[in-house]
Amino acid sequence: MDEERTAAWWGRRAWELLSAVRARAPLVHCVTNLVSMDVAANALLAAGASPAMVHSLREVPEFTPRCDAVCVNVGTLSEGWLPSMRAAASAGRPWVLDPVAAGASEFRMEACLSLLALRPAVVRGNASEILALASRSLAAAASSSSSSSSTFKGADSTHDSGDALQDAKALARSTGAVIAVSGAVDYVTDGERVVGVSNGVAMMQKITATGCAATALIAAFLAVVEEPSDVMAVAACALAVFGLAGEIGMESGAKGPASLRMHLIDALYCLDEQTVTSRVKISLHS
Amino acid sequence: MDEERTAAWWGRRAWELLSAVRARAPLVHCVTNLVSMDVAANALLAAGASPAMVHSLREVPEFTPRCDAVCVNVGTLSEGWLPSMRAAASAGRPWVLDPVAAGASEFRMEACLSLLALRPAVVRGNASEILALASRSLAAAASSSSSSSSTFKGADSTHDSGDALQDAKALARSTGAVIAVSGAVDYVTDGERVVGVSNGVAMMQKITATGCAATALIAAFLAVVEEPSDVMAVAACALAVFGLAGEIGMESGAKGPASLRMHLIDALYCLDEQTVTSRVKISLHS
Amino acid sequence: MDEERTAAWWGRRAWELLSAVRARAPLVHCVTNLVSMDVAANALLAAGASPAMVHSLREVPEFTPRCDAVCVNVGTLSEGWLPSMRAAASAGRPWVLDPVAAGASEFRMEACLSLLALRPAVVRGNASEILALASRSLAAAASSSSSSSSTFKGADSTHDSGDALQDAKALARSTGAVIAVSGAVDYVTDGERVVGVSNGVAMMQKITATGCAATALIAAFLAVVEEPSDVMAVAACALAVFGLAGEIGMESGAKGPASLRMHLIDALYCLDEQTVTSRVKISLHS
Repeated sequence: MDEERTAAWWGRRAWELLSAVRARAPLVHCVTNLVSMDVAANALLAAGASPAMVHSLREVPEFTPRCDAVCVNVGTLSEGWLPSMRAAASAGRPWVLDPVAAGASEFRMEACLSLLALRPAVVRGNASEILALASRSLAAAASSSSSSSSTFKGADSTHDSGDALQDAKALARSTGAVIAVSGAVDYVTDGERVVGVSNGVAMMQKITATGCAATALIAAFLAVVEEPSDVMAVAACALAVFGLAGEIGMESGAKGPASLRMHLIDALYCLDEQTVTSRVKISLHS
Repeated sequence: MDEERTAAWWGRRAWELLSAVRARAPLVHCVTNLVSMDVAANALLAAGASPAMVHSLREVPEFTPRCDAVCVNVGTLSEGWLPSMRAAASAGRPWVLDPVAAGASEFRMEACLSLLALRPAVVRGNASEILALASRSLAAAASSSSSSSSTFKGADSTHDSGDALQDAKALARSTGAVIAVSGAVDYVTDGERVVGVSNGVAMMQKITATGCAATALIAAFLAVVEEPSDVMAVAACALAVFGLAGEIGMESGAKGPASLRMHLIDALYCLDEQTVTSRVKISLHS
Repeated sequence: MDEERTAAWWGRRAWELLSAVRARAPLVHCVTNLVSMDVAANALLAAGASPAMVHSLREVPEFTPRCDAVCVNVGTLSEGWLPSMRAAASAGRPWVLDPVAAGASEFRMEACLSLLALRPAVVRGNASEILALASRSLAAAASSSSSSSSTFKGADSTHDSGDALQDAKALARSTGAVIAVSGAVDYVTDGERVVGVSNGVAMMQKITATGCAATALIAAFLAVVEEPSDVMAVAACALAVFGLAGEIGMESGAKGPASLRMHLIDALYCLDEQTVTSRVKISLHS
């Protein structure tokens, strides 16, 4: 397939998906962290989706099946919320996992592994998170992981996305999930193919929960495609659109992370066909 | 009464209430959802009130009676928080209920009905929420509810406010609460009379938790009037002031939902007498 | 020492500390309240630190020892989170306590007192909070506390910072913590010496959780100094830098609390040596 996928193809595909989100307003159920709720909900709304933050186990089994897609994010994980995350992941809807700070504790790592076993369509994390996850998930197999507690920095990555590429591919093959590694270039892989997404600006890392919002946007994009679809392309397009919103936000006069956040959300709301089709930067990674 | 209530009367009343909030800085206790805490607290502060987000059952029975008004919002409901919501609602202070996504689950619906039995002064929701609530609350009586799971969209409404007007009136009569239905026009009713509030801009729906913030503002306005007062007028004035802040926010150069949110809060802080008295749009609905 | 501490000395020290935060990106573990998570995380990121919001008791004992400093904030206290706060405070890292609305309930006061016993390096609160804390902590000793429930206003202070100065000194002597009282002038004391920080603008009080963000910034500054160090100077510099960011935010065209919040975070990110060394206003209080 990849031969046909020119830059123009990717631009059109990204626009098709964003347009579908705007037209259908998919209901995206987020069991997400306490820090990211505001910005994730606002990003989903700006993109045209309808966010639903629900976390009670009394509601999830009834509520989630009526949603169009699910986003599970372990950023502020607790014992109380984990069963709801598992229930939401098991509800039969396409879902995306954000393994925030996967290496922060044994409890968190085990939670991530148990969620990974529930077959997310996509896992999106930064390099440190994907490396940590791969090193445990692939423990029995050979792993090139260089993750170690000595470089541990919580939710912020201490690795470049390229550092995690081989582990990401191995993790994708072993789990069946598309793995997306955020960084200066975002890499998205199904275990065989790899695409690189070059949209975005560095300052986005200085806004809390931009990664969480990007994961939620992947869920919104997944919500508007038929299964089985080309999940890898969908995830890449979501990340490109989010990164592009960041670029336009920067160009709109951002003077720091807080004004960038505002302009990014505004840009996500305002993106038009010309901008998306001409500026999405996705390419096959050789 | 309604004959005397000209546009000028409403403008003066809205300004009196906002001025009283600024002068007295009422303490508004919110047991609210995790998504809305930031924007609701900031809206209350901008309006001149003092927000207090407290949710532990160890504190509510002691804390709430010292507050001036209460806002209960079920957006991210859980079994752990429901007893605190009920305790806050039972503390003898005027209180407002926001039945976010009332139809999302049986658990949530029953929680809303149990809260409704604790006699809120005002219930504010969008049309879908009020329709869902009315259809259950009035189950034994005739109901014109058209709510159904087929149109269910979480916290976002799939109905116009006018669609819920008859159910809102019936709900007001059966519960004794003033019912406010948000929409392009907000309708506020005590079961007999209906007033329409035409302030606001459509883009406010693309900002998460604006409804929650509007509900909190109703509580702040209730906090500065003597009981028994004309609760319907107070609720209408709060919604008009909030919508007017949105209009001015839009005129201040908002380019999307995130800049609108910022400008709206700034406008709420800056509203002056001339603006409020001349631009509040409340009228008797015939 | 104090004779040597000219305005220029304070400016250089503040810049050294901010530069060290930017260079080392300390991992700051926050067990903080639900309202402040977003703004506290964004303030830490803007200052160059790496925030980590973790609250599960399953993670804290393993996670916190790997962090550089800890911030504990009781704003939305619950029985479920208190053991995690205590565990984080006991992890052997320098830590800061924010006793939000300490007088709101007996449960909250006792929680604050139990945390105070775990020897925070710094306690930062507004005058009402410090007065409430001192009146209970020093109950057996003479106390000049004028705190009473009649003036209770939740998280917002009803006293000037100067009103709490004598109690703050007594509290510092009895606990060994540096006590910082926020207000028009922030006072920071180790029980003997007092420094005054005159940076900041009044409108910052109209933004929710600015106090919480300031406390988190103190933790970030503490994270980059060796122990035992001059904790009082570190706390004063953090408050001065935060207040200075507010001043520059105001000068950047803030039109109300929401635009001030944005400009403040941007300013924190952009602060340069010239600005910090020339505009930090810290002086010995006689």
